[in-house]
Amino acid sequence: MPEATTTTAPADLTDDDLAALDAHWRAANYLAAGQIYLLRNPLLTEPLTRDDIKPRLLGHWGTSPGLNLIYTHLGRVISRRDLDALCIWGPGHGGPAVLAGSWLDGSYSETYPDVTRDAAGMERLFRQFSFPGGVPSHVAPEVPGSIHEGGELGYSLAHAYGAALDNPGLVVACVIGDGEAETGPLATSWHANKFLDPVHDGAVLPILHLNGYKIANPTVLARLPEHELDKLLRGFGHEPLHVCGDDPAEVHRALARAFDLALDRIDLIHRLAREEGVEDRPHWPMIVLRTPKGWTGPHEVDGVPVEGTWRAHQVPLPNVRENPGHLRQLEAWLRSYRPEELFDEQGRPREIVLRHVPQGRRRLGATPRANGGLLLRELPVPPLEPFAVDVDKPGATLHEPTRVLGGLLEQVMAATAGRRDFRIVGPDETASNRLDAVYGATAKVWEAETLPTDEHLARDGRVMEVLSEHLCQGWLEGYLLTGRHGLFSCYEAFVHIVDSMVNQHIKWLKSSRRLPWRRPVASLNYLLTSHVWRQDHNGFSHQDPGFVDHVLNKSPEVVRVYLPPDANTLLSVADHVLRSRDHVNVVVAGKQPCFDWLGLQEARDHCARGAGTWDWAGTDSGGREPDVVLACAGDVPTQEVIAAASLLRSHLPELAVRVVNVVDMARLLPEREHPHGMPDFEFDALFTRDRPVIFAYHGYPWLIHRLTYRRAVHPHLHVRGYMEEGTTTTPFDMVVRNDLDRYRLVMDVIDRVPGLAVRAASLRQSMADVRSRHHAWIREHGSDLPEVAEWSWQD
Amino acid sequence: MPEATTTTAPADLTDDDLAALDAHWRAANYLAAGQIYLLRNPLLTEPLTRDDIKPRLLGHWGTSPGLNLIYTHLGRVISRRDLDALCIWGPGHGGPAVLAGSWLDGSYSETYPDVTRDAAGMERLFRQFSFPGGVPSHVAPEVPGSIHEGGELGYSLAHAYGAALDNPGLVVACVIGDGEAETGPLATSWHANKFLDPVHDGAVLPILHLNGYKIANPTVLARLPEHELDKLLRGFGHEPLHVCGDDPAEVHRALARAFDLALDRIDLIHRLAREEGVEDRPHWPMIVLRTPKGWTGPHEVDGVPVEGTWRAHQVPLPNVRENPGHLRQLEAWLRSYRPEELFDEQGRPREIVLRHVPQGRRRLGATPRANGGLLLRELPVPPLEPFAVDVDKPGATLHEPTRVLGGLLEQVMAATAGRRDFRIVGPDETASNRLDAVYGATAKVWEAETLPTDEHLARDGRVMEVLSEHLCQGWLEGYLLTGRHGLFSCYEAFVHIVDSMVNQHIKWLKSSRRLPWRRPVASLNYLLTSHVWRQDHNGFSHQDPGFVDHVLNKSPEVVRVYLPPDANTLLSVADHVLRSRDHVNVVVAGKQPCFDWLGLQEARDHCARGAGTWDWAGTDSGGREPDVVLACAGDVPTQEVIAAASLLRSHLPELAVRVVNVVDMARLLPEREHPHGMPDFEFDALFTRDRPVIFAYHGYPWLIHRLTYRRAVHPHLHVRGYMEEGTTTTPFDMVVRNDLDRYRLVMDVIDRVPGLAVRAASLRQSMADVRSRHHAWIREHGSDLPEVAEWSWQD
Repeated sequence: MPEATTTTAPADLTDDDLAALDAHWRAANYLAAGQIYLLRNPLLTEPLTRDDIKPRLLGHWGTSPGLNLIYTHLGRVISRRDLDALCIWGPGHGGPAVLAGSWLDGSYSETYPDVTRDAAGMERLFRQFSFPGGVPSHVAPEVPGSIHEGGELGYSLAHAYGAALDNPGLVVACVIGDGEAETGPLATSWHANKFLDPVHDGAVLPILHLNGYKIANPTVLARLPEHELDKLLRGFGHEPLHVCGDDPAEVHRALARAFDLALDRIDLIHRLAREEGVEDRPHWPMIVLRTPKGWTGPHEVDGVPVEGTWRAHQVPLPNVRENPGHLRQLEAWLRSYRPEELFDEQGRPREIVLRHVPQGRRRLGATPRANGGLLLRELPVPPLEPFAVDVDKPGATLHEPTRVLGGLLEQVMAATAGRRDFRIVGPDETASNRLDAVYGATAKVWEAETLPTDEHLARDGRVMEVLSEHLCQGWLEGYLLTGRHGLFSCYEAFVHIVDSMVNQHIKWLKSSRRLPWRRPVASLNYLLTSHVWRQDHNGFSHQDPGFVDHVLNKSPEVVRVYLPPDANTLLSVADHVLRSRDHVNVVVAGKQPCFDWLGLQEARDHCARGAGTWDWAGTDSGGREPDVVLACAGDVPTQEVIAAASLLRSHLPELAVRVVNVVDMARLLPEREHPHGMPDFEFDALFTRDRPVIFAYHGYPWLIHRLTYRRAVHPHLHVRGYMEEGTTTTPFDMVVRNDLDRYRLVMDVIDRVPGLAVRAASLRQSMADVRSRHHAWIREHGSDLPEVAEWSWQD
Repeated sequence: MPEATTTTAPADLTDDDLAALDAHWRAANYLAAGQIYLLRNPLLTEPLTRDDIKPRLLGHWGTSPGLNLIYTHLGRVISRRDLDALCIWGPGHGGPAVLAGSWLDGSYSETYPDVTRDAAGMERLFRQFSFPGGVPSHVAPEVPGSIHEGGELGYSLAHAYGAALDNPGLVVACVIGDGEAETGPLATSWHANKFLDPVHDGAVLPILHLNGYKIANPTVLARLPEHELDKLLRGFGHEPLHVCGDDPAEVHRALARAFDLALDRIDLIHRLAREEGVEDRPHWPMIVLRTPKGWTGPHEVDGVPVEGTWRAHQVPLPNVRENPGHLRQLEAWLRSYRPEELFDEQGRPREIVLRHVPQGRRRLGATPRANGGLLLRELPVPPLEPFAVDVDKPGATLHEPTRVLGGLLEQVMAATAGRRDFRIVGPDETASNRLDAVYGATAKVWEAETLPTDEHLARDGRVMEVLSEHLCQGWLEGYLLTGRHGLFSCYEAFVHIVDSMVNQHIKWLKSSRRLPWRRPVASLNYLLTSHVWRQDHNGFSHQDPGFVDHVLNKSPEVVRVYLPPDANTLLSVADHVLRSRDHVNVVVAGKQPCFDWLGLQEARDHCARGAGTWDWAGTDSGGREPDVVLACAGDVPTQEVIAAASLLRSHLPELAVRVVNVVDMARLLPEREHPHGMPDFEFDALFTRDRPVIFAYHGYPWLIHRLTYRRAVHPHLHVRGYMEEGTTTTPFDMVVRNDLDRYRLVMDVIDRVPGLAVRAASLRQSMADVRSRHHAWIREHGSDLPEVAEWSWQD
């Protein structure tokens, strides 16, 4: 916890301070414009010529001056208060500004030594921007000091809160663009302040930057009267400080004052909560900054206004190489920053530019908060034995897998009670997903009003529940990227709500892994439960197993998918994913009672292999190839396959059936397509090269084909899975409707094993009959046939 | 437009009115509880026994009394004012309430004649609820009067606004649950009032129902002090009317008064805008209704409080069949509504219950607004000829396909100027996506402040731009389901933001198609542009072609995917999808200059076939099977394939190359898996059964395998596509990085045509060389090799 800072008087900048701040800002603006336009002649030591200009002008000037202004002023308060600060840069295409800031403070050159803080480095900085082999125009993993990609908009504020959680000494400034503010995820993130504990968490300082326009339109928030906007922000629980203007000196003074007031207010909130025990929910300060889009850039181009309009969004002077007038205008614009006052002859920033720039790890480009792997500690996952279920023989007992996992998670929560570096997030489903054992070790965080009837709510809880998958995902991303651990527990169907966010996180991890200076962070772990097969009271709208397909389109070095079939395999998988780094792990596991198939050691061995034969479930082939392979992935398909194998053993004992269970879906891929991919010899040994394979899969059946189409056995592969046939019905009716039930699987075997169709015709008919009986029974009774409901499997 | 209603005095309910409203509410509560619990004995004519109770108790009581109260009071104001009203029921699991309401008003029995409005029908109504073969617990397509599924939460308010657009006489009440209000999409939907024109659009009346809890937690908005919530809602641009209580009579009075005030205020807003020409943005009324969760249900169960807590969420008495005490408590609860006062001996609602229920099509369950196909008119799509580009020979000219489409869309906009039943939605990208010709016929709707520098903004515009894909999607869904037409233009990568929404819309359409009383509605059409291959200034975060994979997992009767390769094929596809019904059409087309390959008639013929040989692009095989098939889907892959075919013709003229282009992706599927699927004989004739097929595809390559794995030629199929290798670079470098470029395709042909490896070794080497030269050149120059940039194709 930081020492309480003495409340300082609101800033009264000296003229020297003002000159230094303005110099830094002008330098950053110069560097931002230079990145968009210049290939050489970075200091304008020669008159600007066509050949100095990049052949393709790509980049976004509009947002840069505002971001630069904030970078400049954050430097001042960080230095002045010795703040531990991180900044999230929300607006899109903010790359030029943040790159400029980190180049100026030296952190860029420390990260990328070939981009020196001098004229040669400046030329490289300019050239590489939006240039092949260079850096993107968004704030991206390549940018030091960043944990937030400014490409897809909407997640800045959630990321900021995630970073602030359990970092009591940290102030996270979060710049929110007024375009971004129109997104749903950002709109609901304002309420994240009801989940921020002033005692154990750091502060978030939102800076809503209204430059008035998105790509081609005004923004909603910028066109509200100030009194209406002020009400809105107060309604969100903030005390807004409004800074507005287009005169640099006035804006510098007002913004410095706003920062001082905001940080004083944060100090006060912390002191009251931490020292005086005040428990009222604080109304946190925030800053509203209204400045022109493309401020200090060309005011008019070709007779139409540019500065302060949407036309300043991208490249305000688009035809510099072709149009000598534009070239002259660009030169005048660049020289308006008086680069000779800002950089010495070698191109190094002058003292006045650097006067308020923080030092060492306090610099925004150098904070280890933004390279979380530097701060990451091993998660204390306890031994699994005390939580494992005893399995004397397979299929003799039932457990709810997620409830078993809950015991393990409670211990992880308990073991991190002091360190506070593990959180569970979820959309109001932790108990519904049967993980409520964790409330033995912590509570759900809640800073708003509580009532006597509430349970498991506390200001310092580390379970985070809010009915917004976006907020859950954003919090967790911010938490992980700043060096902590976590788990996202979610209904399977509704995790699609964050499809696009997980895309971006996977892309972030993929890019980060290629940057040697970025250290591995804890994986983002999904536990998808309340899955497609067990939505008894929810029905069709809650049935979607396609998230697995979605993530398996993404970079194989990042993505892992696990379908543990019972409680102990879930424990083993959880143990693995909680310890892993730089991955996105998708674990699909049911919360309903499920047969226990494997003891703990068997489960560990099976999960380590990722896929294997369950000899006890099949029939002995006497050393020869089996007649048929029954494969399965997922808890419900596994149960149906084992029931089918049991039926076959009773009725066709001479048939050699091999049962294969797959936990780690990527094992099905060729080894060159995924690090977990299985070599052909291993795949062929498991699935054979030419026997019929009936594969019962948890999700959409074609995923299995997509993973295995190169295998020898593929022409003999027949997959059953979810066919988008769902409704409100019984569990067994769901598998019948989608042709995944044990009786259908037996029929499939009869249909596909050569010669069996005639021999087993009556068995096939009796399987068809029981399916018909099932249909009639559930319509009449509203429950499954007793022979299904009471079925159990024992060897 | 409705006649302006005289402003009425706020409601002063007579005791008779109060009694009638309360009777309706009690009846609805009785019916909601009955649906959750009762299998028989619906009128409690006998003492309740265990056998009267459903075997599986599924359903959600908590939200029902509040929804019933609103249904009751909406009936009163609809009758009193002869309102054309639609209600969107946002809270999850609201089925029992809305089913109760429509059964009471008779619309349910008219829709489902076997569920009569008497004791027998009541028993059916009870039994079918959350019962196999019955109806889901959410408001769903099966529910008359509904256009909104209450399963996945967050979209109610966007749907409400979509329904109100261009329906000036309509009032759309929208009940927002306080759980749902935490979602991102709902949070940003509050600002939709800045896009609602009081002259041409109807009104939306949000009713924020704070019952305090979601599944297991309090809700954020319910735990704000009223003054803070009030500020928030005023900040959203509303004038809130607060109704709070747990005494039924008081709440009836207050809610009736609030409805009267709100509707008076709406009338006033309309009159000022429509008759007095007032142009100020109105601050629309809304209602905040705070009542206990599970109100009128069991107060305590087993010694813990239930009514007014989260424990009332689902089934408040969970063990009725096993626990005689619970059974007695259930009976007392049901009898507390005094069913004998509400229903006659035949189980028909008594007069007092129906006194304020509206008549005919004014009933919420009978409004044609909620069965949009009844109101749908053919969209006047003009002849394509004036917009088509001339193609004397393939590849001789370049056009931007979306700009060409913009001309057509302008005419559709112009032709619907009076009818106002066509809208384009998009996240601030209509001009960026080069559809700005539409501004010749309409503008972007904008009700907030405007400045002199703004362009193309108007209060009555029919292009809707907001930086929220969720809001765009929700608006369009609401617009289409109420019987209008539209198009969603979106960046390809970011359409994943609405993955989950499109899931739900597809599920809605699939279910609706199985209900004979639901009439077909216009399709939801996506135009995905700014696609993966042309993100020159955006880079990796903007590159994702996986939406196609996502939708192709869904019901084949609903989903269609088109990849037109040039301007005229885009016109033809657009013409088709704009006229289609009950589909989700995904059209992927570039905005960058693209060769024109087909004249209009050829384009029509090609699109009608969905896939076909382009003889002019290949080499004549002299009537025999080709040596190799070069297949393509998507504009950039098509260009690379044709360039590769051209290289092969120059360098290996004796090689017989067939070029196949695929527009309609579902044609690749077997005919039994999709209505557009191709029979094997046709597929084999196109792709051969045994020749090497090199398939250059726009998206993830394994999608092609997933679609074709059953085809004879599949073992010979080699697919190139996006391999998640992206960055900020040149267009050609993108295809090189992903091995989709013409040179790689030529190498693939050489590697796969038997006997060619030796014969064409030097050509292969020169292809490899040019790829190396490319790499060096773009790093140096930042632009593509001149031979690539200047390449053109002519026969």
